[in-house]
Amino acid sequence: MKCRKCGHEAVINMRQHKLALCGDHFLEWVPEQTQRFIEKYKMFTRDERILVAVSGGKDSLSLWDVLLRLGYRADGLYIGLGIEGGVDYSNQSHEMCVHFLENFKFQTPALRTGASVSNVNVTADDGPQTTNTQYLIPTLHVVDIGKLYGETISEVASRTTRGRGKPCSVCGLIKRHVMNRVARDGGYDVLATGHNLDDEVAVLFGNTLTWNAGYLVRQAPVLPADKPGLARKVKPFCRLYERESAAYALVRGIEYIYDECPFAEGSTSIAHKEVLNQMEKDSPGVKLQFYLNFLRAREQGLFAGAERAAHVELNACEKCGQPTSAPELCAFCRLWEKR
Amino acid sequence: MKCRKCGHEAVINMRQHKLALCGDHFLEWVPEQTQRFIEKYKMFTRDERILVAVSGGKDSLSLWDVLLRLGYRADGLYIGLGIEGGVDYSNQSHEMCVHFLENFKFQTPALRTGASVSNVNVTADDGPQTTNTQYLIPTLHVVDIGKLYGETISEVASRTTRGRGKPCSVCGLIKRHVMNRVARDGGYDVLATGHNLDDEVAVLFGNTLTWNAGYLVRQAPVLPADKPGLARKVKPFCRLYERESAAYALVRGIEYIYDECPFAEGSTSIAHKEVLNQMEKDSPGVKLQFYLNFLRAREQGLFAGAERAAHVELNACEKCGQPTSAPELCAFCRLWEKR
Repeated sequence: MKCRKCGHEAVINMRQHKLALCGDHFLEWVPEQTQRFIEKYKMFTRDERILVAVSGGKDSLSLWDVLLRLGYRADGLYIGLGIEGGVDYSNQSHEMCVHFLENFKFQTPALRTGASVSNVNVTADDGPQTTNTQYLIPTLHVVDIGKLYGETISEVASRTTRGRGKPCSVCGLIKRHVMNRVARDGGYDVLATGHNLDDEVAVLFGNTLTWNAGYLVRQAPVLPADKPGLARKVKPFCRLYERESAAYALVRGIEYIYDECPFAEGSTSIAHKEVLNQMEKDSPGVKLQFYLNFLRAREQGLFAGAERAAHVELNACEKCGQPTSAPELCAFCRLWEKR
Repeated sequence: MKCRKCGHEAVINMRQHKLALCGDHFLEWVPEQTQRFIEKYKMFTRDERILVAVSGGKDSLSLWDVLLRLGYRADGLYIGLGIEGGVDYSNQSHEMCVHFLENFKFQTPALRTGASVSNVNVTADDGPQTTNTQYLIPTLHVVDIGKLYGETISEVASRTTRGRGKPCSVCGLIKRHVMNRVARDGGYDVLATGHNLDDEVAVLFGNTLTWNAGYLVRQAPVLPADKPGLARKVKPFCRLYERESAAYALVRGIEYIYDECPFAEGSTSIAHKEVLNQMEKDSPGVKLQFYLNFLRAREQGLFAGAERAAHVELNACEKCGQPTSAPELCAFCRLWEKR
């Protein structure tokens, strides 16, 4: 298989695009595509400050890399969840993020002196304060849930009824809160996550099997900051297959944590991914088309009625100020009240 | 595995219902369920005349059997498509329908003298005339496409561009026209087809992968006769799994044609069924829930906007009088104009 652009040996063949590329051209192609999606879905502009949620995995580190190489003002946020899982999962993940930033500085001499790893000064009462004021010099914010709130994800999950024995629901709630908070308090315009096409399609597939109207109308490459205290959320890799994001990390030499979160095992989204992978194998491009057809159908008003119905009035949480449908405290703050 | 009702050996275990039944109780259960769906979706009443489209397969013959046993006034319509496919497919199918009716008469002494097989007197100009005026005595109408229109499905398909080399699109068009016509001209209130849950879910799955709004808003257990010249269409087996409908035919001793239509091979709906079967195996009931969740979401207005948009004005075809979105002749009549 030859690279379509230069004829050298290809490192990846993307059947759904009928496109094979060598390493060099693939490393050009991914940022080009990402830039295209950023513009197409109006995710953010060059003037805006971006907070990238990094987990130490291939998607989020590749995304941060691509955004920095495209010249965006993108800082990282690592949330330490305190997940052990036999593989020292959280510490390893943190290490990967720190390593990525050091390595990026080393490979990018202009930034060598500026990039820094800042442990955000956060207290449960005051919210995070970032010390990074120099643009173009990426910073990694680190929020350690266990240190900040006194309990790790696993500990909180063990004393709540959310999620039927799995911490995933609590973990999602806490991450959303912290991401929003660091974005807001750090003055970021937008929060970017590394969700790839396979992630988006697995979620869409699950929400379609249950025909969950509330979730269907809200799944999009961009969630606008339409409530006070909510950051705009964007997914610049939403049209990139998981294998493309993994290949980008590999070819670019980004080290990342290979393990899935130990709690993900047996999750429905992983079961859905297996089904979708089989379909993709039989019919290349079916995942991408499923996602794009969905976006198009919504744009053309398929869910217009449900979108109006899904609009709910939110209050500011009395404690943290983030929007909530509850009358007093948001679900995140209630989590800690119960101790 | 024991029958839940009587403790005898079960012939079927329906994991999605956590219900195992012996032959006798299964033969009771299927009509009970069918009656429940007929009422729930307001398909038809005991006063109405029903035309059941029978293909000679397990679903449509089981449906006809169940409707007759439930005491409905249900006649059959067999459409001879002239498909050979190496297994004498159409003749075999016809034979199964005739055999079913003879056998039904034999098993049901009260009807023994009355039931008849009528070749509908149809000409291309006059439309079918049915000779059956005695209610409760089932009739099988037979319309032979080759004899009536001078060309079999395969022959028509070979000279049109519909369906990219496969006759399925032409076949669907012709069957819809003929079913509507026999229903209208025979004075039937409603047209019933044997679509089972697996059929409905495969179609829904396909329409979801493409997010085809027009098809999504129209998929339902009942399509009302909301245009002049259109028969109400109902699917009383829409919540019955394919294996349940097959088991009903087997246990009841209904002989049916086992072969799929030879043209169905390689169709996307069969590929979708394989995916869905795998999902069902991993998670019993997922197909039924997918379908029921879809119906519920629509009822709750998920597609309300699209439903209004999908409403199109139809004209009566200048030749056959059936509703069409075309200005003069409907797609069916144009098919024969091109000769």
